[in-house]
This record gives sequence, structure tokens and C-alpha cells, in this order.
Amino acid sequence: MERVRIAIDCMGGDNAPEAPVAGALDALAASSEIEVILVGREEEIQKALAGKKYDAGRLSIRNASEVIETAEHPVKAINSKKDSSMVVSLKLVKEGEADAVLSAGNSGALLVGGQTIVGRLPGVKRAPFGAMIPTTHGGSLLVDSGANVDCRPDMLIDFARLGSVYVSEVLGRKNPSVGLVNIGAEEEKGNALVKETIPLLREAAGLNFVGSVEARDIPETPVDIIVCDAFVGNVVIKMYEGVAKTMMKALQTGFKSNPVSALGALMSLPSLKKSLKDFDVSQYGGAPLLGLKGLVMKTHGSAKAKEFTNSCLQMIAFVRNDVVGKMQKALAEAEKSKTAESASTE
Amino acid sequence: MERVRIAIDCMGGDNAPEAPVAGALDALAASSEIEVILVGREEEIQKALAGKKYDAGRLSIRNASEVIETAEHPVKAINSKKDSSMVVSLKLVKEGEADAVLSAGNSGALLVGGQTIVGRLPGVKRAPFGAMIPTTHGGSLLVDSGANVDCRPDMLIDFARLGSVYVSEVLGRKNPSVGLVNIGAEEEKGNALVKETIPLLREAAGLNFVGSVEARDIPETPVDIIVCDAFVGNVVIKMYEGVAKTMMKALQTGFKSNPVSALGALMSLPSLKKSLKDFDVSQYGGAPLLGLKGLVMKTHGSAKAKEFTNSCLQMIAFVRNDVVGKMQKALAEAEKSKTAESASTE
Repeated sequence: MERVRIAIDCMGGDNAPEAPVAGALDALAASSEIEVILVGREEEIQKALAGKKYDAGRLSIRNASEVIETAEHPVKAINSKKDSSMVVSLKLVKEGEADAVLSAGNSGALLVGGQTIVGRLPGVKRAPFGAMIPTTHGGSLLVDSGANVDCRPDMLIDFARLGSVYVSEVLGRKNPSVGLVNIGAEEEKGNALVKETIPLLREAAGLNFVGSVEARDIPETPVDIIVCDAFVGNVVIKMYEGVAKTMMKALQTGFKSNPVSALGALMSLPSLKKSLKDFDVSQYGGAPLLGLKGLVMKTHGSAKAKEFTNSCLQMIAFVRNDVVGKMQKALAEAEKSKTAESASTE
Repeated sequence: MERVRIAIDCMGGDNAPEAPVAGALDALAASSEIEVILVGREEEIQKALAGKKYDAGRLSIRNASEVIETAEHPVKAINSKKDSSMVVSLKLVKEGEADAVLSAGNSGALLVGGQTIVGRLPGVKRAPFGAMIPTTHGGSLLVDSGANVDCRPDMLIDFARLGSVYVSEVLGRKNPSVGLVNIGAEEEKGNALVKETIPLLREAAGLNFVGSVEARDIPETPVDIIVCDAFVGNVVIKMYEGVAKTMMKALQTGFKSNPVSALGALMSLPSLKKSLKDFDVSQYGGAPLLGLKGLVMKTHGSAKAKEFTNSCLQMIAFVRNDVVGKMQKALAEAEKSKTAESASTE
């Protein structure tokens, strides 16, 4: 079986190049199924590799002289920095030299570059990011978690379809359920976008739509795919991070407030940490850009080595199970069933 | 000084009539500045009052034979149930027999009834709910927390104005700061609504606009008024509740997982509870419907006596400081400055 070839943008994110390089090495050690192409300024990458042990047969370096910075304008950056680590990585996928790209760099640029360089599957109007968020049922895929802030109903239907293929093929959950973020469970609730989308999701062939999901219920929802526009998706994921972080701080303050509770803290912290680990958004690795002709994955700007490693390992199932091919098939079947339906009603 | 007269809808919410009645009695005991009018089915209210001690000179009962249920269609309910506790309460304010209404009933109906019976101030296009949410800086007012899910930029400007008057007059924070919920701090970030609203907020006279607020930063934000449409507002407030609730459960599971940590829990729980109390959304009482000719306040459906009491006490400053009059003045001045500006540019 051929190996899964991952191009790693080694210049993106706050901890570049150390974190992407270290994460790549850990991934190589963890799985014999992958090989990595480290993309970026060769000298800096060599420095990060110095003294480390790894299987050199499964690692190569591709020099790229430019770096797209976090604050740069996405379209301008992709168009002007042809020799940036991000553009070079994306081209490796386009040209079949890599199966996947992993980057912690400028999200907007990755979104633009993914769509223009790797390209969208036929029928996909917009590519959404799908991020796993923690739930008491092992996590849900939030789509769109960061790409398209202004959506039309048909875009949300695509997000549901792409997310369903990902969850079933990569996470192995059969017939995964789809919910729509809403402000209440009743039929008449929602803003204009949501009210238009609900009946379309109900009618859509091949989707296991189970209705609205209220934000309050997200942390404990059994729903596999949570659909929303990326503005709402950003609020969901960032509130999750923010509230969890602030509560952890408050807990620490509480523990430290007197000697008795500090002693209590020592006794209970190990098991507390174990049960709160489920709320760590980073445990799930990166967010794939769904609906492209190849795999493009974003991990967050502050990602450490562990998150690069987790993302690499996550990519194996994506490539092995031909998620791209299956997404294309699911979209084509949906299109056919729409055509058949409109023919039968004529 | 005349007392603040509060009409309490005693039939609204999950715990009616016991919770509203008990909350009213506690509020009477806590402040000699208020009197309450208990509105609803007299027999049931009398039963809830039986055996309780209170200052009968500051309590009266207004019989109302009907009840608007939570699931009822708001417009239909307000139009058809003229003798409901909610409609009768709102009419008491309209006719000057009460200064304020407090209800835990159907939010949509209260929104419709507030606008049609009590009425909007001149120039107010839509009345938003303003809910206090917990922050490490003593709380922020989230406007709109539940009324208008589809907004235009000029509506968000009104929300900022109404919220600023409320926070300055009721909470006593001078020149309060205004932020807009957004997906990033950079100027070019946001959906279409946010991008159109930012320059208008910047130019608006009399507002202390400080820029975008990312959801991640909300729990620790020093910003006094957080503006957004009510769809986003609902997601913010419900994610807050949901994540906090689920983390508290996970903590309890962690504490119980073995005898050592259970003992640790006994030692640290009192101080933990104290520091986590700040995350209890209910501590802040009700959410006023802003921009009306009188005070209409909503407390949530599952509110207990304590929340009714807190809401009643919060109403004193609102009425005493003539928040309605000051909102009207702020809107009129903004209108005048807009007219002056367009005249000067002609």
C-alpha cells in the first residue's frame, strides 16, 4: 500500500518552524503509513531538524523562500507570493506530488489558495471548514467553522452533505445525524437563513437531518454534524474556548483561596484534569477544508507539535477512504435526485 | 418619594404562580421603595400567598382569567387573550397604573405585547432585549439578547444607544464602552452586517465605540455593552450556559471518581463554588426590553423566586433614574446630530 504523503507548511503559525517540524517527526514515528514533505525555508527547517532522529526515507524538504504572514490580505498574498510555503504546499497537492496539505498559517489565505490552487469539486459552490468540537458524545463536526460568513440555504445543504461524508468515512460513524444551529427547537424559530434552510434539509435525499440544535445543548449533543454559517460557527467555537478557559482560571483561583482548599486541590486535581480534558479543543487536531479536489487541513495558529501530529494521523483515514471521491459521488447523486424530482413533477 | 409600582405576571414561567409570588414578597421585604401588583388568577395567587407575611399596604392583586402558554404563537396570543395575565400587566403600564412589568412567560408574546401595548419610543424601529452576561469585569449588557434575529445596521446602532443609556443610568457606569461581536479584531473581518455596521458605529455621535469583540474574549471583556443581532446573541448566551453547565457536571464526575479526590472535593468545594458563582447567569435578574415607553422586563422561564426578587430590585434604578426619558433624549439628540450633519454636507 502506498504511503499517505503530507505536505507540511513549516512557516505557518506562531510556533513555526519548530512545532510543525517536531509534529511531523512525531507523526512519522507514530505511523509507518505516512511520509512528510516539509515545505519552507530549507535552512530554518534543517535547523529545526538538527540532532533529531527520524526515518529519512520518509521525509523530504521542499524549499520555499517566502512566508505569508497572518495579517496579510488573503487574495493578494496567494496571488503575489508564488514561492511561499503555503502556495508551494498547495501546488504539491494539485500536481499529485502530495495527498494532503497541513498548515497553521493565515486561514483566509489557505481558504483562497485551497479553492484556487487545489480547486473545488464539481458542484461545490463554497468550501467550508469542518472543525471537531468537544461534546460528551465524543465530539461533533461543526461546519462551517470558519470560511463562509454570509451563506445562502443551498450552501448550508452542501455543508451538511460534505460533513456527512467526512464523519462517516473518517470517524466511522454510519448514517451520521445532521443538526442546524438554531435559537429554539420549534419549527417557527430562527432567522431568515435558518427558516429557509430547515425545509430544504428535511427534503434533501441522503441526509439524516434531525432538526435544530440550540447552542445551550451543543456541549452534550449526540448530533454528529452541526451546520451553520461561519459567523455563527466562529461564535460557537470561540465561546467554547473562552468560557472553558475562564472557568479553569476561576477554578484555580478558588483552589488557591485558602490552605484547606489548596490541599483539597492536590487530592482532586488528577481526576479533575482527566474529566476536563474532554473540553480541550486542541485534542481533535485540524479542521479540513471540505469539498476540494484534495485534502487541505488547517490547524490553529497557536498549534503545538502535538496538534500537528494529531492532524497528520487524522489525514490517513481521509486519504485511505477516498473521502474526496466519496464527496464527489454524494454531490453527484444529490444533483441527480434533484433532477429526477423536478422531471417527475413536470 | 412615590413608590415604584411593579406589575408581576404571576402566571408566566415554569414555576408560576409560586415563584413570582414568593419573589414579589421577598422584594417587598428587601426594599420599602416598591409596591407590587400581582396579576393572574386571583384564586391561585391567594393560595400562593396563604400563610405568608407581607406588608399588605404595598401589595394588591389584579385578577386576569387567561394564561398565555409558552408554545403559543406570540401575535395570536396577544391579540386573542385580552384577559391574560401578560396583557393585563402590560395595560397597567400603558394606563399609568404601574411603572414596570415583570414576566417569565412567552418571550415572543412579551416582545409583541411590549411593543404594541406599552409602545416604542419615537424613532425606535425595533426593541431589543438587553441581558447581563457574566464577565470577570462585573458583567456586560448583551443587546440584542433575544428579540430581533434579522437586523439592519441602523438597528444595531439603536441597540448600542439604548444599551449605553441603560448601563450608564441603571448600573452607574459613566461613558460606557460599546463593542460589536465579531470574528476577529481586524477591520476587514466580519459578515456583511458587521462590516456595514462598524463604520456607522465609529461615526455615531455620543457613543463610546471601542471596536470588535471576539467571542473568545467575551468572558473576560471589559466592554460594557456588547452589540449583535439576536440570533448571534442567543448563541453567545446559550453557549455560556451550556459550556458552564457541562463543565460543572464534568467537575463533579472528576471529584467522584475516587475516594481521594472525593475527600479533596469536600475540602475545596466551598471556595470553588464561590469563584464559580460569577458564571451563574441567573445572578443578574431579568432582561429589559429596551426602547419602550415603559419598563418591560423578562426573566427566564425557569426563574425561581430569587430571580424575580433580583429583577424587581433592579427595576428601582431604572424607574428612579428615568431611563425611559433619557433614552428618548439620547435618540432625539442622535437624530438631531444626523440632521445637522446632512445639512452641513449639502
